[in-house]
Amino acid sequence: MALVPLIEYAQASAEVRAVYDDIMTTRGVDWINNFWKALANDPKELARVWRNVKQVMAPGALDPLVKEMIYLAVSVTNGCQYCIASHTAAARKAGMTEAMFGEVMAVVGMANETNRLANGYRVPVDAAFED
Amino acid sequence: MALVPLIEYAQASAEVRAVYDDIMTTRGVDWINNFWKALANDPKELARVWRNVKQVMAPGALDPLVKEMIYLAVSVTNGCQYCIASHTAAARKAGMTEAMFGEVMAVVGMANETNRLANGYRVPVDAAFED
Amino acid sequence: MALVPLIEYAQASAEVRAVYDDIMTTRGVDWINNFWKALANDPKELARVWRNVKQVMAPGALDPLVKEMIYLAVSVTNGCQYCIASHTAAARKAGMTEAMFGEVMAVVGMANETNRLANGYRVPVDAAFED
Amino acid sequence: MALVPLIEYAQASAEVRAVYDDIMTTRGVDWINNFWKALANDPKELARVWRNVKQVMAPGALDPLVKEMIYLAVSVTNGCQYCIASHTAAARKAGMTEAMFGEVMAVVGMANETNRLANGYRVPVDAAFED
Amino acid sequence: MALVPLIEYAQASAEVRAVYDDIMTTRGVDWINNFWKALANDPKELARVWRNVKQVMAPGALDPLVKEMIYLAVSVTNGCQYCIASHTAAARKAGMTEAMFGEVMAVVGMANETNRLANGYRVPVDAAFED
Amino acid sequence: MALVPLIEYAQASAEVRAVYDDIMTTRGVDWINNFWKALANDPKELARVWRNVKQVMAPGALDPLVKEMIYLAVSVTNGCQYCIASHTAAARKAGMTEAMFGEVMAVVGMANETNRLANGYRVPVDAAFED
Repeated sequence: MALVPLIEYAQASAEVRAVYDDIMTTRGVDWINNFWKALANDPKELARVWRNVKQVMAPGALDPLVKEMIYLAVSVTNGCQYCIASHTAAARKAGMTEAMFGEVMAVVGMANETNRLANGYRVPVDAAFED
Repeated sequence: MALVPLIEYAQASAEVRAVYDDIMTTRGVDWINNFWKALANDPKELARVWRNVKQVMAPGALDPLVKEMIYLAVSVTNGCQYCIASHTAAARKAGMTEAMFGEVMAVVGMANETNRLANGYRVPVDAAFED
Repeated sequence: MALVPLIEYAQASAEVRAVYDDIMTTRGVDWINNFWKALANDPKELARVWRNVKQVMAPGALDPLVKEMIYLAVSVTNGCQYCIASHTAAARKAGMTEAMFGEVMAVVGMANETNRLANGYRVPVDAAFED
Repeated sequence: MALVPLIEYAQASAEVRAVYDDIMTTRGVDWINNFWKALANDPKELARVWRNVKQVMAPGALDPLVKEMIYLAVSVTNGCQYCIASHTAAARKAGMTEAMFGEVMAVVGMANETNRLANGYRVPVDAAFED
Repeated sequence: MALVPLIEYAQASAEVRAVYDDIMTTRGVDWINNFWKALANDPKELARVWRNVKQVMAPGALDPLVKEMIYLAVSVTNGCQYCIASHTAAARKAGMTEAMFGEVMAVVGMANETNRLANGYRVPVDAAFED
Repeated sequence: MALVPLIEYAQASAEVRAVYDDIMTTRGVDWINNFWKALANDPKELARVWRNVKQVMAPGALDPLVKEMIYLAVSVTNGCQYCIASHTAAARKAGMTEAMFGEVMAVVGMANETNRLANGYRVPVDAAFED
């Protein structure tokens, strides 16, 4: 189904394995999910995307759980099935409870609704928000 | 520019004023933003949307700041200018620092990128995520 | 602001004027809106798009008012400001009342919300819907 | 495949059953589709979403068939597979013929095309639409 | 799974066969893909959509490979699984190498990211771009 | 209007100036557009996004003009006004003629239409595309 072969660790070049190793070490897991196996067909792209994900998702002003829930909210809005599945798993691993999952979904649903109401009525931005 | 008149408090019916009063009390503010003034053209719709926003955005398993940042992430993904302006203001009021704002944007950008990579390569969902 | 000049009737070639004339006759109006003036920079594209709009929006199994409200619903979902403004005007001209406008917005908002809930929970399609 | 268990009537709490009963009564059906069975993991969210769908989709200035076709148009624009399947079924039940379905699709396609042309050329909104 | 029957050549009316024949001749293929078999339920719509695809995708100022890659970029952005599969096949047939595919994906990902950053920060358009 | 101050070169830190200098050198321009001035509020994010844009948009299997037109196609699909303005300018600088611009728009429009038709009819992917 994928448009490119999925590159397994055993078949991978040293360049790809280095990224795979860093993914597993950083995340504390012992396997590589399909997203990276697809990107590995273009080793520079694999390295580029992983470097960015690693930097952006690292703990900072926001903790990893909040970042994962934001990632999930975007993925649900865009309807990306792969991303919804993988980031729900990641968010649960980072501590998202079922009650939290339900609230993320509710906020995402509500925001998608009011985004359209604001656009549909062509509501002008309040001066107070432009300060 | 709005497609309907914006209903000011002074002109509003008792039914609309009751919702406006509840918005101001719940949020601890002394003014109504344009979104609600547009919806007020349809008082039942105003009441319906506010009742939902109030329920969904109330503190629960997630605190209000996290909910506001998720709301903002969706609004940015959808490109809703009004909602980006109003929910950035709301998130800042709830405690979002400039560093947090920058990280929300970075996660939203990253998620929008990888959502397309996952779709574009047609990456199959890993069995481990289907459990 | 437009990325191409807007071609006015007085400046237009005979090929463009023929399309402009057909637009005005078909719609019973005496002016051309900016959308067509932009497309007129590429006369074949102008003719192609108009031919399609004319065919698709003609009365058929659905009447023109219903078609305009569907057009508006899509435009609101996509957040196209120009299209929201122009198709609200067209729908009102075709008979959309303020109560109908409010209901279109409510349905569009609701559908955008539940679309995300269905995606976010990864709800499988019921066998009954696959018949 | 769903990210939460689907709650069947036999397993459901009294609170959930009350909503299920109202859905079946309101719609004149004797079964519950998967969307609600997923939401039922969060009974308050189930009740909230159903209350809104019931209110918004009730006959009003627009009849139920028109509302279902607008719902379908949004779902197609967003690419929500579950919603396309369920709302095509609902629209057909409400009287949508095959000819009407074809015209809904044609209008949705056309609107999605011209939405991008209007954005892509950055067409300014005509003064006549701003009145 | 399709919402309408897929019309095979053997079952098709003369009107539908004429379009199918033109598709096969224009593309130099000996089979019809499912997209057209679905549209064929509405023969006028089949003819309309094919006429447009044929005109828009013909060689012009841009060559067919570039057009196919742009088509693919849009399909990936919208998450249309059918279109991603069919237009990747079409682009490969027109000469897209694996390296080119990887670069299309990278640009699409990057654009989707920066589109949100520009919206999220509400960056004003530079005067230099408004000339 | 921007949600953060726009950082001018004269006010910028050495870290930000180094990125600005690289942008101007790489692109052969003597000014910085607002997108980067907004990102500069978060110098690490500025550096990260620029490093990616520089890598992804460099000549490779695809030439810079094709990459810019793909970037534009995505921006139009997403309705990002800033990005449409800036990438139309960039594409024109890279050699996009008015005829090419018109064809990019036509392909983008067409793809957005057929993406919805494929989704709306729920067209199954042909076996030939799954090889």
